[in-house]
Amino acid sequence: MLGQITYANPTKLYFGEGALKNLGPALQNVGKKILLVYGGGSIKKNGIYDSICKILKENNKDVLELPGVMANPTLAKLHDGIKLVNTHKIDFILAVGGGSVCDYAKALAASAYCKEDPWDKYFVKQLPVDNAVLPVGCVLTMVGTGSEMNAGSVITDHSTDMKIGRIFGEELMPKFAVLDPTFTYTVPQYQMIAGFFDIMSHIMEQYFSGTDDNTSDYLAEGLMRSLVHNSRIAVKNPKDYEARSNIMWTATWALNTLIGMGKEQDWEVHMIGHAVSAITNATHGMTLASVSLPYYHFIMDAGLPKFVRFAKNVWHIDPTGKTDEEIAKAGLDALKAWMSDIGLVMHLSELGATPENLDAIADGVILLENGYKHLTREDVVSILKASM
Amino acid sequence: MLGQITYANPTKLYFGEGALKNLGPALQNVGKKILLVYGGGSIKKNGIYDSICKILKENNKDVLELPGVMANPTLAKLHDGIKLVNTHKIDFILAVGGGSVCDYAKALAASAYCKEDPWDKYFVKQLPVDNAVLPVGCVLTMVGTGSEMNAGSVITDHSTDMKIGRIFGEELMPKFAVLDPTFTYTVPQYQMIAGFFDIMSHIMEQYFSGTDDNTSDYLAEGLMRSLVHNSRIAVKNPKDYEARSNIMWTATWALNTLIGMGKEQDWEVHMIGHAVSAITNATHGMTLASVSLPYYHFIMDAGLPKFVRFAKNVWHIDPTGKTDEEIAKAGLDALKAWMSDIGLVMHLSELGATPENLDAIADGVILLENGYKHLTREDVVSILKASM
Repeated sequence: MLGQITYANPTKLYFGEGALKNLGPALQNVGKKILLVYGGGSIKKNGIYDSICKILKENNKDVLELPGVMANPTLAKLHDGIKLVNTHKIDFILAVGGGSVCDYAKALAASAYCKEDPWDKYFVKQLPVDNAVLPVGCVLTMVGTGSEMNAGSVITDHSTDMKIGRIFGEELMPKFAVLDPTFTYTVPQYQMIAGFFDIMSHIMEQYFSGTDDNTSDYLAEGLMRSLVHNSRIAVKNPKDYEARSNIMWTATWALNTLIGMGKEQDWEVHMIGHAVSAITNATHGMTLASVSLPYYHFIMDAGLPKFVRFAKNVWHIDPTGKTDEEIAKAGLDALKAWMSDIGLVMHLSELGATPENLDAIADGVILLENGYKHLTREDVVSILKASM
Repeated sequence: MLGQITYANPTKLYFGEGALKNLGPALQNVGKKILLVYGGGSIKKNGIYDSICKILKENNKDVLELPGVMANPTLAKLHDGIKLVNTHKIDFILAVGGGSVCDYAKALAASAYCKEDPWDKYFVKQLPVDNAVLPVGCVLTMVGTGSEMNAGSVITDHSTDMKIGRIFGEELMPKFAVLDPTFTYTVPQYQMIAGFFDIMSHIMEQYFSGTDDNTSDYLAEGLMRSLVHNSRIAVKNPKDYEARSNIMWTATWALNTLIGMGKEQDWEVHMIGHAVSAITNATHGMTLASVSLPYYHFIMDAGLPKFVRFAKNVWHIDPTGKTDEEIAKAGLDALKAWMSDIGLVMHLSELGATPENLDAIADGVILLENGYKHLTREDVVSILKASM
């Protein structure tokens, strides 16, 4: 374990079929005025909205609604929320939806009482939060981002084309998250498997960096194995409770800081994915899937021992008679086979990208210096070409 | 993931060499009057006591000392603490030591303001805590029990020969734990490796039960692999920081409730170990080591798929050409080889037990109904005989 570590995660998880019954007790001491934040309204079709409203009413809460939080929550939408909170003296933000809704709720919780410009202060300049913050709770309806148990938030300002992520402190972590795997059954198959790869990518971004033999990497391997096993079941039967519940739990622990503790992390695949997303508007998880194999093949030699370990521990590749390179390649082949089995996008072209787009995508990629190999713009272009 | 799960763990971890520098800030808002709880005084020899007193003084705390907490903290000692807290209006309990000191601090925190008899109410009758509780923080100097990040506490009443464990709620979990791996360097080798097996046993007790394919089991496998790898290094060089830090982190996560979430658990080995301890007064981890292999061989057939999985995922046993029984046995043989490599006690006789003791030990074993096989008293006797 490298360096000085502070681990703190106060989010309380209510998990399992029927977990919504904990919402009332969880809101007991949080004040009367609840801001109910949600997205495009799918929760009205599947009955979750009605169930939540009933609970809020039974608990004598005053509810103000803030619907329409979009897939990439915008600064304009954040300003709407800030106005609402200040006009109506909100006590608690209840986010119902996927990662974007949770992200939005946290940004709003941090920003509502900020006396300066919160976008400039907390996102552009990444300054510490020094104002009072609102408490947040989540009811999760989509799996993948892990936003329900971390302090991360990504907001997009369309007026300047800036999409900025912020990792706040523990005071912005949700007070609780209700995780009912059956709430995710109605997510369309394409979104579901995109979410699966988002989880895998979160784990790999933390795993493929560093040279130490870290307990966090062993935990990461466990999560990857659980995800691989259960996702194969879930794509065939999306209502397999055991599979979906194991995946939901895995997603939360993949990005609640635990498996990144005491180790270096990469996150270059996410940088490439974001740039792909900006040009193609494709689903986040699929952008990651489309570029991951070429990226990992590109950096494999530079991080060979970790790729050998990945092959052996995650995919049970038999090393007998193989060179390290062959073992590592066999591991990436196994990753590829799994991706193909569960129906992931394997090529940028499937997301609508054309050869003419590649330069623009490359221009949008932020080059980090975390992973086994520090990419140049030319490296990015060659990875994108290999992804077509 | 089985059933309804509530996961909540508010303990903040300050981890790494030099982590004690966080103690001052962590005590900022907890009041002035600190009860400093510790054990036999080893912290005075290795300098930890002086470092802590300096920090408490710099932060203007009034310190009252409660030394002499023993390996199995007693009810009489608990009563001493209750008197101290009530006489001196303590604001915060700072536990410095290993699991026993942490256990004691939590029992005291729950009991101090209890108007009835806390032993009867919270241990014998296991009733909910309904009085105010004191906040607790830990500075850990020994690794193994995981008490620094859970709500467990074991207290012994010598007047009735009752040793009772209690798992409190999250309000009794330590507010923070300072985990500096270098603080554990001076622990004698025998105690160190006993602690290693205590960790392994905590994981196996949670792992070897249930038939579902649970994410928690994948995490457990990761922790076991980290422990096996790093313990082999640590026994050769107890000052290998990477090994000791990975083990310290593993110990905390082995018993902070995470890997038991959504699954059945066993804990019969601990029941047998406690009974061995009562007769031999041997070190806890060694009592577990002495009986584990015979126990797991005894229940192997009843839980064969999990033992096969254990062999493959933890020990990388090649299944080619083997029956499931042969794979499972090879896994237990690998466990045995590891135990022997790191110098663990493998036989009850090494702990001073004689054939004449076995009946008395068997009489003291609480028979649970959790694991793959529900033991009879005769089963226990045969396991004990095989352990000699």
